[in-house]
Amino acid sequence: MTNELAEDPTSAAPAPRATRATRATRATRATLADIAALASVSVATVSKVLNGRDGVSDETRDRIDALLDARGYSRRTTAHRPAPVIDVLCFDIASPFSAAMTAALERVVRRAGRGLVISGAENDYGPPAGWVDGVLHRDSLGVILLLSELSPRIKTRLRSRDIPVVAINPFGPPAADASSIGSADWNGGFLATRHLQELGHTRIAIIKGPDGMQAAAARLAGYRTALETAGIRVRPEWIKPGRFVHADGYAQGRALLELEERPTAVFASSDLQALGVYDAARSLGLDIPGDLSVIGYGDLSVSQWASPAMTSVHVPIAQMAEAAMTLVERSREQPGLSFRHVDLPTELVVRASTAPPRRAS
Amino acid sequence: MTNELAEDPTSAAPAPRATRATRATRATRATLADIAALASVSVATVSKVLNGRDGVSDETRDRIDALLDARGYSRRTTAHRPAPVIDVLCFDIASPFSAAMTAALERVVRRAGRGLVISGAENDYGPPAGWVDGVLHRDSLGVILLLSELSPRIKTRLRSRDIPVVAINPFGPPAADASSIGSADWNGGFLATRHLQELGHTRIAIIKGPDGMQAAAARLAGYRTALETAGIRVRPEWIKPGRFVHADGYAQGRALLELEERPTAVFASSDLQALGVYDAARSLGLDIPGDLSVIGYGDLSVSQWASPAMTSVHVPIAQMAEAAMTLVERSREQPGLSFRHVDLPTELVVRASTAPPRRAS
Repeated sequence: MTNELAEDPTSAAPAPRATRATRATRATRATLADIAALASVSVATVSKVLNGRDGVSDETRDRIDALLDARGYSRRTTAHRPAPVIDVLCFDIASPFSAAMTAALERVVRRAGRGLVISGAENDYGPPAGWVDGVLHRDSLGVILLLSELSPRIKTRLRSRDIPVVAINPFGPPAADASSIGSADWNGGFLATRHLQELGHTRIAIIKGPDGMQAAAARLAGYRTALETAGIRVRPEWIKPGRFVHADGYAQGRALLELEERPTAVFASSDLQALGVYDAARSLGLDIPGDLSVIGYGDLSVSQWASPAMTSVHVPIAQMAEAAMTLVERSREQPGLSFRHVDLPTELVVRASTAPPRRAS
Repeated sequence: MTNELAEDPTSAAPAPRATRATRATRATRATLADIAALASVSVATVSKVLNGRDGVSDETRDRIDALLDARGYSRRTTAHRPAPVIDVLCFDIASPFSAAMTAALERVVRRAGRGLVISGAENDYGPPAGWVDGVLHRDSLGVILLLSELSPRIKTRLRSRDIPVVAINPFGPPAADASSIGSADWNGGFLATRHLQELGHTRIAIIKGPDGMQAAAARLAGYRTALETAGIRVRPEWIKPGRFVHADGYAQGRALLELEERPTAVFASSDLQALGVYDAARSLGLDIPGDLSVIGYGDLSVSQWASPAMTSVHVPIAQMAEAAMTLVERSREQPGLSFRHVDLPTELVVRASTAPPRRAS
């Protein structure tokens, strides 16, 4: 996938954005003075907006941003030498997935001779106050979103300075106005469920990921397809909601295991959820994998440290980080490049938390 | 401890460095031309060294760095406006401790209106090639070392630009040429061991941290003191080496549990080591805490996710991050500030992995 990306940057691209493509080939670009005249403000005010400084009303800032975007002003035509950094906006930096991805991004960004600026997203997955001003002030080479998202207004501000945005695991469907990187979540859900079936399980439950998260929906769809392919009825009471946290794995695991007719296997949509299911089983005196098989998702270090070591779907974190950096660099070299979505492959890693179901159960 | 730091920045300080204090009060500073003349090079060459650019031999660079340091050239006297970033050099970004500390640092750096640039240290705990050039090029406001270290040469280069360095959990003893932040490791080791004694354990083993790491040595010393205070002989065969990784906890846990006279409790010097001991116990069919009590160190999220939830020594990560940032800012405001070491308090968090020993054992 990464190779395909390197060879043909425009294949499999969503509809190209005419404005952007036109801008890249435009012979003359607007000057600061042009923008100031059009916006009926001083050159100093335009400069403030360009550099992310204070002292400009939101309304004026939006108007100037829109003009900068429409008129094709490019900061790169100025003498300013950009500081060589990439900005990463990350939800829950300390979580195992974010930490592993941050470490991988740091390696690829460093190999490219850049520094990595990391910022924590807020609880609504958006950036903290003032974040975009910092990005502009640093003249960042690009923004990588990790489990986080930006408002259209902020995207416009970044686009007006030709700062590309690439989202890793975006929440919704791949956006029309930003590139994104994911992994084969549907396939991962299918592989996990089929593995349990091959062991002989027919009573397989799932704990889902957050509502509205594309990757979580795809994992659930893979689970459903595997059941349906095997001619097993999908039972709504064995499909539980959850965020990607230990507490939800525990609560939903308890709920599943206390059902009158309980499942013999649980497919958790994240490794942390699966650790929560471990705890739920333990709290009820159930053995893993003797009484209950458990599969996680992510193949993060925590899955290898678990007792017993956890069967999990491998997410190719290093390759996703590389693909994100490649897309940022391509977008800088070819500002007219169409937005695209890249999915990298997943695979199942079988460890000790899955086994055939007990006959008696 | 943080408050004490805020109120009196010079108390409990190690011996002040005369050179630095003198520089801060010097009325006139050397110009680029002065430095160039003294080094018998062009002003352009001095400028290259100042800005971390290529094209200067190591020998010339060292000579100019030394002159910049000795003559008190300060980049802050130029018109250049520093990019508002702090650099963090971190060993093993993806590890639970590093990830938790990075998340905490990101919060305090952001609250201070700065960006956080993160770089991964190499296997020798030193920075990757070219790292210091990037720091100088970005004109970073300060460097925070996390489980990593710098050569004297790199420290000189940073000092020549008045870029302060603060180390969190430095390897060796607190350095004479940099400030550092730690936590009360000796006390943590003591509290963990005494808790096991209060439960009735007398056969208490320890898995140590990396050789030469001050924090690990202090944890071991706390363990020894608790045993000696209780009149229990310290048994060398129950003191095992290890790095702060799961694999070493497993291997040393197995070694301890296969001794003819095995311990009834293991104090691991990190949470990951303790998870390895969980696996070792499980592999031998031993129950935690029934057959073996286990204590970790760090009180990281992994200790709460473990089954059973792990008793662990709490390391005050958020406060350590705050103290590091405070020291960076103080050093910028008062370049003559003496280097100092701050230790923040630890405490024991009792969960489900410790219990009285079985009578029969």
